[in-house]
Amino acid sequence: MQLGMIGLGRMGANLVRRLMRDGHECVVYDVNPETVKSLAAEGAVGVNSLADFAAALSTPRAAWVMVPAGLTGQTVFELAEHFEAGDIIIDGGNSYYRDDVDRAAKLAERGLHYLDVGTSGGVFGLERGYCLMIGGEPEVAARLEPLFETIAPGVDTAPRTPGRTGEIAQAEKGYLYCGPNGAGHFVKMIHNGIEYGMMAAFAEGMGILEKAGIGRSEAALHDAETAPLAHPEYYQYDFDIASVAEVWRRGSVVSSWLLDLTATALAEDPRLAEFGGRVSDSGEGRWTVLAAVEEGVPAHVLTASLYERFSSRGESLFADKLLSAMRKQFGGHAEKKADG
Amino acid sequence: MQLGMIGLGRMGANLVRRLMRDGHECVVYDVNPETVKSLAAEGAVGVNSLADFAAALSTPRAAWVMVPAGLTGQTVFELAEHFEAGDIIIDGGNSYYRDDVDRAAKLAERGLHYLDVGTSGGVFGLERGYCLMIGGEPEVAARLEPLFETIAPGVDTAPRTPGRTGEIAQAEKGYLYCGPNGAGHFVKMIHNGIEYGMMAAFAEGMGILEKAGIGRSEAALHDAETAPLAHPEYYQYDFDIASVAEVWRRGSVVSSWLLDLTATALAEDPRLAEFGGRVSDSGEGRWTVLAAVEEGVPAHVLTASLYERFSSRGESLFADKLLSAMRKQFGGHAEKKADG
Amino acid sequence: MQLGMIGLGRMGANLVRRLMRDGHECVVYDVNPETVKSLAAEGAVGVNSLADFAAALSTPRAAWVMVPAGLTGQTVFELAEHFEAGDIIIDGGNSYYRDDVDRAAKLAERGLHYLDVGTSGGVFGLERGYCLMIGGEPEVAARLEPLFETIAPGVDTAPRTPGRTGEIAQAEKGYLYCGPNGAGHFVKMIHNGIEYGMMAAFAEGMGILEKAGIGRSEAALHDAETAPLAHPEYYQYDFDIASVAEVWRRGSVVSSWLLDLTATALAEDPRLAEFGGRVSDSGEGRWTVLAAVEEGVPAHVLTASLYERFSSRGESLFADKLLSAMRKQFGGHAEKKADG
Amino acid sequence: MQLGMIGLGRMGANLVRRLMRDGHECVVYDVNPETVKSLAAEGAVGVNSLADFAAALSTPRAAWVMVPAGLTGQTVFELAEHFEAGDIIIDGGNSYYRDDVDRAAKLAERGLHYLDVGTSGGVFGLERGYCLMIGGEPEVAARLEPLFETIAPGVDTAPRTPGRTGEIAQAEKGYLYCGPNGAGHFVKMIHNGIEYGMMAAFAEGMGILEKAGIGRSEAALHDAETAPLAHPEYYQYDFDIASVAEVWRRGSVVSSWLLDLTATALAEDPRLAEFGGRVSDSGEGRWTVLAAVEEGVPAHVLTASLYERFSSRGESLFADKLLSAMRKQFGGHAEKKADG
Repeated sequence: MQLGMIGLGRMGANLVRRLMRDGHECVVYDVNPETVKSLAAEGAVGVNSLADFAAALSTPRAAWVMVPAGLTGQTVFELAEHFEAGDIIIDGGNSYYRDDVDRAAKLAERGLHYLDVGTSGGVFGLERGYCLMIGGEPEVAARLEPLFETIAPGVDTAPRTPGRTGEIAQAEKGYLYCGPNGAGHFVKMIHNGIEYGMMAAFAEGMGILEKAGIGRSEAALHDAETAPLAHPEYYQYDFDIASVAEVWRRGSVVSSWLLDLTATALAEDPRLAEFGGRVSDSGEGRWTVLAAVEEGVPAHVLTASLYERFSSRGESLFADKLLSAMRKQFGGHAEKKADG
Repeated sequence: MQLGMIGLGRMGANLVRRLMRDGHECVVYDVNPETVKSLAAEGAVGVNSLADFAAALSTPRAAWVMVPAGLTGQTVFELAEHFEAGDIIIDGGNSYYRDDVDRAAKLAERGLHYLDVGTSGGVFGLERGYCLMIGGEPEVAARLEPLFETIAPGVDTAPRTPGRTGEIAQAEKGYLYCGPNGAGHFVKMIHNGIEYGMMAAFAEGMGILEKAGIGRSEAALHDAETAPLAHPEYYQYDFDIASVAEVWRRGSVVSSWLLDLTATALAEDPRLAEFGGRVSDSGEGRWTVLAAVEEGVPAHVLTASLYERFSSRGESLFADKLLSAMRKQFGGHAEKKADG
Repeated sequence: MQLGMIGLGRMGANLVRRLMRDGHECVVYDVNPETVKSLAAEGAVGVNSLADFAAALSTPRAAWVMVPAGLTGQTVFELAEHFEAGDIIIDGGNSYYRDDVDRAAKLAERGLHYLDVGTSGGVFGLERGYCLMIGGEPEVAARLEPLFETIAPGVDTAPRTPGRTGEIAQAEKGYLYCGPNGAGHFVKMIHNGIEYGMMAAFAEGMGILEKAGIGRSEAALHDAETAPLAHPEYYQYDFDIASVAEVWRRGSVVSSWLLDLTATALAEDPRLAEFGGRVSDSGEGRWTVLAAVEEGVPAHVLTASLYERFSSRGESLFADKLLSAMRKQFGGHAEKKADG
Repeated sequence: MQLGMIGLGRMGANLVRRLMRDGHECVVYDVNPETVKSLAAEGAVGVNSLADFAAALSTPRAAWVMVPAGLTGQTVFELAEHFEAGDIIIDGGNSYYRDDVDRAAKLAERGLHYLDVGTSGGVFGLERGYCLMIGGEPEVAARLEPLFETIAPGVDTAPRTPGRTGEIAQAEKGYLYCGPNGAGHFVKMIHNGIEYGMMAAFAEGMGILEKAGIGRSEAALHDAETAPLAHPEYYQYDFDIASVAEVWRRGSVVSSWLLDLTATALAEDPRLAEFGGRVSDSGEGRWTVLAAVEEGVPAHVLTASLYERFSSRGESLFADKLLSAMRKQFGGHAEKKADG
């Protein structure tokens, strides 16, 4: 089958490679002509303008937009100028699902179809395949199923879920039609929200392990501003955290891909000296919280994991200053300085 | 190698089976003679008293205690009456790591050795193997390594972590000597704390998906006590949550054993009608929070996941009543009744 | 000074009464003619249509809209039909500050002015006065200052803040020009967000006091699914919670109006038997969280207090069922039923 | 009435002054003879050893111990050496209520009585009075009621709670017999836990106000690692936070002593430049969380407010590094550095 790809960053380029390996034909475009040339050398049809892009695709066209989140809307509508009724534009990036709903409605006015495809897989997707969450008109999604089947990891990636019988379902191959427009990115948003929560669970747990020797620290026992540790004898450990992550990879309840990655990171450097602890967040974590609030569904864990990232970047500084200021007011407590 | 097993519940019995399959000799005891008989029929040496148990084991003895958490301490000390200097008692249950520290000190007065072995694996351990986290004297742990190697899942259960080279480490086989007494159960405690957080992450995310059709509900749009949903058009979804869990199993960042189990549960019944939503908690989640507080390390996510379980059992009722009472006081708001 | 009031619910009517007591002239309108009649009997100029309302006000007109949140926008624009350039419309309700920004822009096209005035005071405002947070054009807010001064509690309500000297500032009288449109409701939104957090702090603390006798409960000591309480001897209390709330009212750090209300509610009935514990939430708590997320500022406490309300209404049910389902999958744990 | 005071720091000295003003006789001791001399000059009976202290008190003796938390136990038992059956030792410091239970039991073996008196009031107590929460034998507490009545703020400090009638209760005067030993400090512990939550509510709310101009920041609009702010037009405010705190002091729902202190601190310096944002925590916040966990009662807000303090001191650093490390592993994301 034929697919056009706009945006040849790591993710777009690897999608193209995975499609070509399986015999699909790819027309590729990027604002950077070098990356176009490079993929053309691997067998893609390279073009250098949206007009050429549209011309190179057979109708009804299908084009996948894989550009940075901030540019997706603009790219979709520019592309639409060159497309005609019946063509399909796929947003494979990390769009806010509400933008999908709005964009699809605008494109529909001109007879264009729009699919939002949440795509998970990270840097390993070329080999592992990408998990795809698809929103849009069902018959349009169905038309492109051969592409999704190639991109997705495939049924053999995981053992069959007990209780599932009969024909293999889409979801078992690693892609899923989730519902009307926005549904794909909604599911991807929640996926990332869960990812934040799981990451925080590991990080917090490891943080407690890392400090389990606090009973050996003089400071913990004699601190004018903090209650001294009542039972230092129970905090005398010095855990090899990299080994702990490793041992959990086999047979434990927390086995997961994120644990595998944790083990890899800690095997490289158990002190993680390379990192300063300023954790970025992308849109999905925030949007997940907005959805929880608007739906009126509690999401303590997902929200806390987002806020931890804000805090890691110093965003609670004013609040913290105010806490120290209040303590000084009512108790005359001077703020304790950092050690040293 | 020879091992005695006290407590032949599902976990103890399966440990014995896994050991015997691999050629180890097991002496087994349980307060229920039927379970002793049943395992004896599978090849174990069955005994019906602690005295016989001690007599049947060659010295220096090694015995694994696998009884309900509330009975472990008592069983350990009763067994110790029949053991002698140089013998080893292993606590494989879910003990509080502080109890291990205390018990080990008491047994040491009589020359007995004590190992605390956190054991993860659940109902699948017989086939998958059990992840083992070991605390105690290093040479004592080393002496029993052949047993741990059999019980653990083994190196082939997971691909090697990138960056690890050379000889296969303990952790890569699925068991780990973690440090002095208590270390094994400390690591197991944190493991379970993380497990709580991961479970909550999935549960909350699925909860948001489950309510994503709220824009179609009249109640959400006209509710005297709650702000009406500003944009119902963005909450029109009706997700097939079982399929969502399934699709994430392949290629996504949240791939994990807990996701596999979630997919299984939802495949059985996507409405989970069998459950009332009263979630139990065992000691480890609580102890993890106590450790975080005593160490002075933030653990928002792990704690919230514990508190969610308390709430699910109605434990916030008094607080909630007080909130309604305050609202009535300052705003004259009558408490809104449940619908219907 | 003259002011028109649209909406004569408890809050609107009391504002009118407080204004008239201080010599201001009020023109009043409500969809319910009875309430108009009733306030007219107290001295207001009652009218029965928006046209009459506009006619009865001298130009440039000033009208305060105090209708349920869902009707504010519509009322403002209907009123604007009868108003002319230079007139002022005040939204004193609980609008989302973003709506203020949008409405003000629309009204400005026609030369109309708009003020958003967050109003706090609840059922006690008639006597205590209302705290006013004002957004809009500064000169427009300044023009109505005599009205705000009457409505606000006045400088004598609280002792002067140490460090403040010289002329009495607006804020010290209980009203504040906060900034351009939306600023008034933004500050009111945060006020309510803080209120949620304070309420939850009291509720949670009282909840812990209320259960401090758990050590006397057999269930706490022998529970198959939960770790037994390790030290029941420390949980033997039976606190008189109404008295605790009362004693804190004098001299303690948590002295506050919300504590006064808590003490009142508990004096009425320390068991709060009238309440079922389903806590409503209005828009401000939710909007506060949305603002925190969009600004990237952590707000663990304010968010948790919102989510507690969601939970109190059963909104975590699906998530909780899923937790029980996972526990059954990996551990074979049947869900524990409620007692009895 | 006569009372001995051990420990003449700010709190102990002010208690003595307040008692003497009301005609009570005070015998005072401190390890620092200067402070003894200074209070003796104000009318107290100063002594320079525990033996002299015991000798100077008439039997049955009553002594109040007001020393730093870490020294209380030792001081109580040293004092007990000089006391005899029937005497009363009062712990007015911030002891863990469990220590009270244990100490009282030990003293009871020798016929000594022990009261635990949680004391709130901070630096303002001399003038405002101290809120007292009392645990111990009821008849012993009753015997000292004249002292408590003097120390407490008195009934006029707050208007009577609606619904309370008849004789003025203890709680209405500002002191309360809470129950057997430990009850006083248990209630004080919860008081401080609530205080943490209220402080955090104000701090977080103010933090959101403080950043409400983020829409004017270029960084917020174009950030490669964070989703750009979707609606910068709604985040254009520049709030005068000191004035906001001030205006809320009159007529608003969040009126409270902590708000008064916040207003004072912000009036001194709205940027709080004196503070670095490292917030100390004392024992009570931690013990409150431990009690919530052991009782199985959710306390999201109180716990989050404690964890925020830990975070403010950098205690989440390892966890945050691990989050950045995971992000790098799965997404190839380099950690973003702090600006500049």
